[in-house]
Amino acid sequence: MVTPATEVHEGLEGVVASSTRLSSVDGAAGRLILGGYPVEELAPQARFEEVAYLFWHGRLPNAGELRDLTASLAARRRLPGATLALLREAAKHATPVMDALRMAASTLSLGRTEGLEGDAGTVVAAFPAIVGGYWRLKNGQEPLEPREDLSHAEHYLHQIFGGAIGPERARGLEKYLNTVCDHGFNASTFTARVIVSTRSDIVSAVTGAVGALKGPLHGGAPGPALDMVFEIGSAERAEAVLGAKLERGERLMGFGHRVYRVRDPRADVLAAAAERFYATEGDRQLYDLARAVEKTALRLLAQHRPGRRLDTNVEFYTALLLHGLGLPAELFTPTFAVGRVLGWTAHCLEKIRECRLIRPEFKYVGPSGLRFEPLERRSL
Amino acid sequence: MVTPATEVHEGLEGVVASSTRLSSVDGAAGRLILGGYPVEELAPQARFEEVAYLFWHGRLPNAGELRDLTASLAARRRLPGATLALLREAAKHATPVMDALRMAASTLSLGRTEGLEGDAGTVVAAFPAIVGGYWRLKNGQEPLEPREDLSHAEHYLHQIFGGAIGPERARGLEKYLNTVCDHGFNASTFTARVIVSTRSDIVSAVTGAVGALKGPLHGGAPGPALDMVFEIGSAERAEAVLGAKLERGERLMGFGHRVYRVRDPRADVLAAAAERFYATEGDRQLYDLARAVEKTALRLLAQHRPGRRLDTNVEFYTALLLHGLGLPAELFTPTFAVGRVLGWTAHCLEKIRECRLIRPEFKYVGPSGLRFEPLERRSL
Repeated sequence: MVTPATEVHEGLEGVVASSTRLSSVDGAAGRLILGGYPVEELAPQARFEEVAYLFWHGRLPNAGELRDLTASLAARRRLPGATLALLREAAKHATPVMDALRMAASTLSLGRTEGLEGDAGTVVAAFPAIVGGYWRLKNGQEPLEPREDLSHAEHYLHQIFGGAIGPERARGLEKYLNTVCDHGFNASTFTARVIVSTRSDIVSAVTGAVGALKGPLHGGAPGPALDMVFEIGSAERAEAVLGAKLERGERLMGFGHRVYRVRDPRADVLAAAAERFYATEGDRQLYDLARAVEKTALRLLAQHRPGRRLDTNVEFYTALLLHGLGLPAELFTPTFAVGRVLGWTAHCLEKIRECRLIRPEFKYVGPSGLRFEPLERRSL
Repeated sequence: MVTPATEVHEGLEGVVASSTRLSSVDGAAGRLILGGYPVEELAPQARFEEVAYLFWHGRLPNAGELRDLTASLAARRRLPGATLALLREAAKHATPVMDALRMAASTLSLGRTEGLEGDAGTVVAAFPAIVGGYWRLKNGQEPLEPREDLSHAEHYLHQIFGGAIGPERARGLEKYLNTVCDHGFNASTFTARVIVSTRSDIVSAVTGAVGALKGPLHGGAPGPALDMVFEIGSAERAEAVLGAKLERGERLMGFGHRVYRVRDPRADVLAAAAERFYATEGDRQLYDLARAVEKTALRLLAQHRPGRRLDTNVEFYTALLLHGLGLPAELFTPTFAVGRVLGWTAHCLEKIRECRLIRPEFKYVGPSGLRFEPLERRSL
């Protein structure tokens, strides 16, 4: 029974909702474990398909297992005709990409009954085709046929851009997808877990998670970090522009994180991935500018907010890396979804084994015992 | 920081996740408050549109406000063409109704930007047309044109059955929709709240909630209660059939509830609605049989489970009432959704004002610090 004095955990901060074997986020120490591996160990070295195997089976695959999983994902890339028709219609209305992704994700159970693990593979395999195909439709191009000979990361870039995808570009994206594939009980992952806790299905859970990820408090932040870099334009203007922002009390986009009190370990992985990528491809000038802006921002933040530790966050390097790969800012959050959907499916498989309905208590603060007055007796 | 000794609240039982002004569930006392009114006061007397106004605005409407809201809901009944096309495709695959409802719900933002309150009205107004239209398509019939001259409850029955809907039938349904429109932080409502906590939108939240409601641990139970009555077939067989079930340790469907330790107050409202309805329409013989089965079941349960209080639950009378109204068991959970979507939208409006991201802690129980072995060095 909830009494008036009961403590209310708005936002559930500090409430331990479940245990998981999938990822560990230690914000105080700046450590992220993915399936047992530190993110900086796993993300730069593994194929996305290896990470998928790790998340679904609890260990890395051997060569045969990796071959089988790669083939099984590749074989699931084709979208149902009705999904493509819906995306075509969504494009006519210039529907935002995350809304189109939610609509399409919800249709992935059309005509299929594959069970939990099949569904996990289907949604992970389908997301690149949905986002890539929709992006082309939204820009007046036709979606491309799925190709089974490409890796998951290559296939995503191919579905957007067509043509041949260079290995550095595919590796850059793959490191990103690996890095963001899971991150504890964020709002979208928690949404997926609540949905499957009713013994619903993975398509339902992932559809709900897309809806949560589209919210600006969750998945909506990577674009503005780069906008700030573009706005500054040249390294020598950084100090003046950023200083003025801080004087006005504005937040500098790309710095600080709700969970990490020290440097976000994903930021290091993505910084290294960006450095590696821009060494051979992409707009080197922009890269140098962004790093110069970052250096100035960190120095100014230390002066203006001496009590707080504000490090460059994952959004900053995400924007830098994805921009280098040719992705427009409108695709940053959808690309996040292409990586995170792996974590969602793994959390569903983990949670559904438990069979424990998630149903918190709440505190009623409204009136009670009102009498129903018929309409004609209500005051006008 | 989560330490190994941290208490894990699996299922969040006992954790107070938020406060709300919308409904209050007191399982120990058997009391349910909807928008300030005891359910037995509000549900049998109010129009569904009055309850919608109450949930969205915090008080009952006067005559002018009710007229406006009724007209605004009626004007939002037409589904987008793409939604109907998707339902048509779903029917070809014999997609379960709740999956089709999830797919269609997700498309309700196509070509619209109406803001939060507009979205609330749109999804509530659209659900009867989705479920009714899809039911007809699934059964080889064409969906019917929406009609603005009918009440919300009449319109739902009209979208399924066509023709004129008698007042007793519409009132029976309306009492049901009112009764189930909200019930605290059940899993689907909590899903909706988690999704909008990211500042996402109502269509996303409601789509996620449909996915949660379809899970058998949440919305999936009203069919079997009536199946048991059909299986028993005549009152004199009740004792033998039910006694044998209890001897075998089987659960009697339609009795007991996770939250209510005494009689569920919704059961009384629906029992009265069923009694009223069957007094003039429907299969009176079935009604008498069901009540006889209920009486026997309660007596036998008291003998076999003396320690536990097991009352007739809301699913039992739901099945009885909805069956009387002509709804097949396959539409019981979707009809639940047609009522509950009102609560979902109201919780979204309430939660979104708070702007507090829902993101619980979790406990990591997997390995950590593993080293990445390249594929060729992994043991086969």
